[in-house]
Amino acid sequence: MYLSAREIEEMDGVRKVHYLNPAAERLNKSLGDAVGMQHLGAHLITVDPGHQSTEYHVHHFEEECIYVLSGRGLAVLGEQLQPIGPGDFIGCPANGVAHELINDGDEPLVCLVVGQRLTHDVVDYPRLEKRLFRNAGEWNLVDQGDIEHVKR
Amino acid sequence: MYLSAREIEEMDGVRKVHYLNPAAERLNKSLGDAVGMQHLGAHLITVDPGHQSTEYHVHHFEEECIYVLSGRGLAVLGEQLQPIGPGDFIGCPANGVAHELINDGDEPLVCLVVGQRLTHDVVDYPRLEKRLFRNAGEWNLVDQGDIEHVKR
Amino acid sequence: MYLSAREIEEMDGVRKVHYLNPAAERLNKSLGDAVGMQHLGAHLITVDPGHQSTEYHVHHFEEECIYVLSGRGLAVLGEQLQPIGPGDFIGCPANGVAHELINDGDEPLVCLVVGQRLTHDVVDYPRLEKRLFRNAGEWNLVDQGDIEHVKR
Amino acid sequence: MYLSAREIEEMDGVRKVHYLNPAAERLNKSLGDAVGMQHLGAHLITVDPGHQSTEYHVHHFEEECIYVLSGRGLAVLGEQLQPIGPGDFIGCPANGVAHELINDGDEPLVCLVVGQRLTHDVVDYPRLEKRLFRNAGEWNLVDQGDIEHVKR
Repeated sequence: MYLSAREIEEMDGVRKVHYLNPAAERLNKSLGDAVGMQHLGAHLITVDPGHQSTEYHVHHFEEECIYVLSGRGLAVLGEQLQPIGPGDFIGCPANGVAHELINDGDEPLVCLVVGQRLTHDVVDYPRLEKRLFRNAGEWNLVDQGDIEHVKR
Repeated sequence: MYLSAREIEEMDGVRKVHYLNPAAERLNKSLGDAVGMQHLGAHLITVDPGHQSTEYHVHHFEEECIYVLSGRGLAVLGEQLQPIGPGDFIGCPANGVAHELINDGDEPLVCLVVGQRLTHDVVDYPRLEKRLFRNAGEWNLVDQGDIEHVKR
Repeated sequence: MYLSAREIEEMDGVRKVHYLNPAAERLNKSLGDAVGMQHLGAHLITVDPGHQSTEYHVHHFEEECIYVLSGRGLAVLGEQLQPIGPGDFIGCPANGVAHELINDGDEPLVCLVVGQRLTHDVVDYPRLEKRLFRNAGEWNLVDQGDIEHVKR
Repeated sequence: MYLSAREIEEMDGVRKVHYLNPAAERLNKSLGDAVGMQHLGAHLITVDPGHQSTEYHVHHFEEECIYVLSGRGLAVLGEQLQPIGPGDFIGCPANGVAHELINDGDEPLVCLVVGQRLTHDVVDYPRLEKRLFRNAGEWNLVDQGDIEHVKR
């Protein structure tokens, strides 16, 4: 359950490209998986200059938080553009505003990201006008315009 | 949902003494609460020299993880004594081994701690031979010896 | 928390027409709501001759069961047509086959229906080729053909 | 997923004696298990004259409900003694009053009982002054007097 800074440094990590955005690419080291965690994802992510961390999105149920370890960039938080750097914290309450990180600098942006792993979630991608329904491993993606909002 | 390094620095924090261990004292800044997170606790903790982070414990259900930001100390992980320092990661899968951090150095030990906030949990304190049952805000503490383990 | 047979008899009930099927009409007496239950729905339903209990459907997560109290009818269980009468039981495990009841007789079909009330569910309506995503009170209905099944 | 009245009649059932009360004995036919239900228990229970259905108890989290099919008896609902007979309904909201059924008549008391099957529950047995903590299959029984109620 312990990983030294050196062991983390030496992990290969996985280069992840977001399934909806080829510009959202990061090197992902899953520290949580490496020590057997199941209900929290804990990732050391590195976003290279010119890339985003993920597609701009908001979770209806899962919470996550980000702590910047090194590098600089921009956090897009709803309508707001927030410059970020080492020691800054971003917490994403469920059903808050959409967000993404952008590395607009010239050195890698390194963050610790910890989030819930829920069985059920709904994720909105406002720029793409899409909604993802995730239920027990099944991912159903739909255009927002194809959703009928049933009133009860 | 954003806290700058400076804002975090300027937070007062709360001095927390563990309810079962007066030597377990830490300065706790709840970053998650400050930004409205509900299902994850995200804390910047500072353990001064000579103190422990918490009473030695293990959760049956909640997972948590710790990332060391500065300072040095010892992580007690079950039977193992693990020296820790900046950049080290400790992940605590549910139902793993008991753990605590000890600052045996001469500067503050500062860590980011992120954990689940579940409605139900069982926490064991092996040194005290006690078990805590937490259910929807009600905390019931019992001596391990007073528990009848019903076989079904 | 107690309702006598007479009190149940005297309840008005609510005439419910299924939101997707005008022929699915029943008189619904929510016994569970009347006694303050929150996590289980418990309903005495009466389906008149010529009507169905609901639109033919299957839940991915919620379980429900039906006990026939009086009357006769047909249970459609996937491809199977099952005649039903007093004392028969139908249990619907999550993610099983789609089902509905039809009163094809000439007296009211009266059943006790008890089911989970989950925060999250997915319901398929195979005849309509529609899927309902229910999350914390929000109902999102989509055509099956508009769903992109994302592989991970 | 279908059981006819005749198939139910012919099920052997299991004679269950409550683990804390030898007078609480019933014949239990698990209809739900027979059709593969996992998250709801659905039982046809028969309590013979002179017996109770269970030890007098209350669940903090699980809800259950009882529908009387035949026979007569008494429902003990907190301080109240309620005569019961065919067509009566008893719903037990979580954290309500303690309850049990007593067959004080001279014919079998037959009921349909449907309840949640939660991973976590707390059950109080007020007459025995005991509390059961159930967490993921582990049953921990303690005397109420051995519980320290930790204030937070």
